[in-house]
Amino acid sequence: MEALLARPRFPHILSRPWLKSSTLRAFSSLSTPPNYSNQSRGGLPRFFSEALPLSKQGGVVRVQGDEFWHMTKVLRLDTKDRVELFNGKGGLIEGCIQRIDRTGLDFVALEDPKMVLPQTTQWHVFAAFENRVDRLQRVILAAAKQCQRLHEMTLKPPTTVDGLLSTVAQPKLSFVAVAEATPVFRALSSFTKEASGSIIVGPEGDFTKKELDLIIEAGACSVGLGLHRLRVETATIALLATLMLWSDS
Amino acid sequence: MEALLARPRFPHILSRPWLKSSTLRAFSSLSTPPNYSNQSRGGLPRFFSEALPLSKQGGVVRVQGDEFWHMTKVLRLDTKDRVELFNGKGGLIEGCIQRIDRTGLDFVALEDPKMVLPQTTQWHVFAAFENRVDRLQRVILAAAKQCQRLHEMTLKPPTTVDGLLSTVAQPKLSFVAVAEATPVFRALSSFTKEASGSIIVGPEGDFTKKELDLIIEAGACSVGLGLHRLRVETATIALLATLMLWSDS
Repeated sequence: MEALLARPRFPHILSRPWLKSSTLRAFSSLSTPPNYSNQSRGGLPRFFSEALPLSKQGGVVRVQGDEFWHMTKVLRLDTKDRVELFNGKGGLIEGCIQRIDRTGLDFVALEDPKMVLPQTTQWHVFAAFENRVDRLQRVILAAAKQCQRLHEMTLKPPTTVDGLLSTVAQPKLSFVAVAEATPVFRALSSFTKEASGSIIVGPEGDFTKKELDLIIEAGACSVGLGLHRLRVETATIALLATLMLWSDS
Repeated sequence: MEALLARPRFPHILSRPWLKSSTLRAFSSLSTPPNYSNQSRGGLPRFFSEALPLSKQGGVVRVQGDEFWHMTKVLRLDTKDRVELFNGKGGLIEGCIQRIDRTGLDFVALEDPKMVLPQTTQWHVFAAFENRVDRLQRVILAAAKQCQRLHEMTLKPPTTVDGLLSTVAQPKLSFVAVAEATPVFRALSSFTKEASGSIIVGPEGDFTKKELDLIIEAGACSVGLGLHRLRVETATIALLATLMLWSDS
């Protein structure tokens, strides 16, 4: 683990950071019809709304706040323009802007909503880094829109090492980043793709040997990320990107 | 390529961004003696200095500016403390702080300098994104120190598509990110590790078909990065992380 994480220099940064638990959801839409696709490449602009119309009949919802601003001020959409709304939980609906006023707009459904289920490996990501929950929530929404994901990442509350053991024990794919362990590329050759998996990247200053033993006993496979000393965030992104490209291929 | 890149909405962002060319250097130190290692895990603190003492005899250099600040104000190092200096070009030397004054410190060599050569694949990275050269130079130095790399990334001036073709044609490993191409994990099975390679990620709005044809004719293999629509920066990091974990494994 040492290679992954900067060595703390002073006692006050040796205090054990709590762990942030989150679930990054990745799925492909290869086997779904175009309309149900996760990807609307070149399609309608897509916006977030917690509430979606329940059906085509009488299906009007009000859009306000940031998304209203983005639609009318940034993209200058107008009444009768067609857009899609998604709720971050797999729900997607096509419709158009019916009315715009000073504080929001009315979206009217042009079809029944669709429900899209995740279709490739769901990665649970545990990374020990600083707490900036409000910022992360904003980034999560922006990233879902950017990637045209229908399923937002779910940010879970911080947990202890003991708290993550039950999650690690569930999936057949569980990886913990450990310096000098078998490189992840070699380790992957003995795994097959599964519906879910987990990734654990320890804090600056490293897991203690006892913590690491607990995680490995719970079922995680230790994997190495090369010889460079990476920040917690960089190690997490490198490992997650590689595993997503592996599981989605 | 569409899946990688956001579709531009307005003509003014359709203008073709110039390409930034840079060389990311990665190497491992598995076969070098500990003292020559790229990684000083738990070893001496390491700082950047363009000039290194030429030998143990009479080897004194002056350290000023940011590195001086980091050594004396952040880490509170004092005279007689042992440190390493690196020059970002493979040079590394161990010594100690001889004297500190208001504007800088004198570093005295305790051994002859070492020269470490890169030992794994050198990745040339071409990514089409916004120009922030001064910021990138600061990030490069910070990243080299964080990762304890002895070879800094070299940031090259912006280039056109024509300008990158000669670089793409040289290495046997050349990859260009293209939506719906063979996933990178599958494509890699027909490649072996080489001393150098290149990665090309196109601009927001995509390469034109003509540009892409030129790049592929020059020798690049098109690879897919899954079905999500990624930002230029995210696509570059995901592809580079995966290729480095592959080539360094």
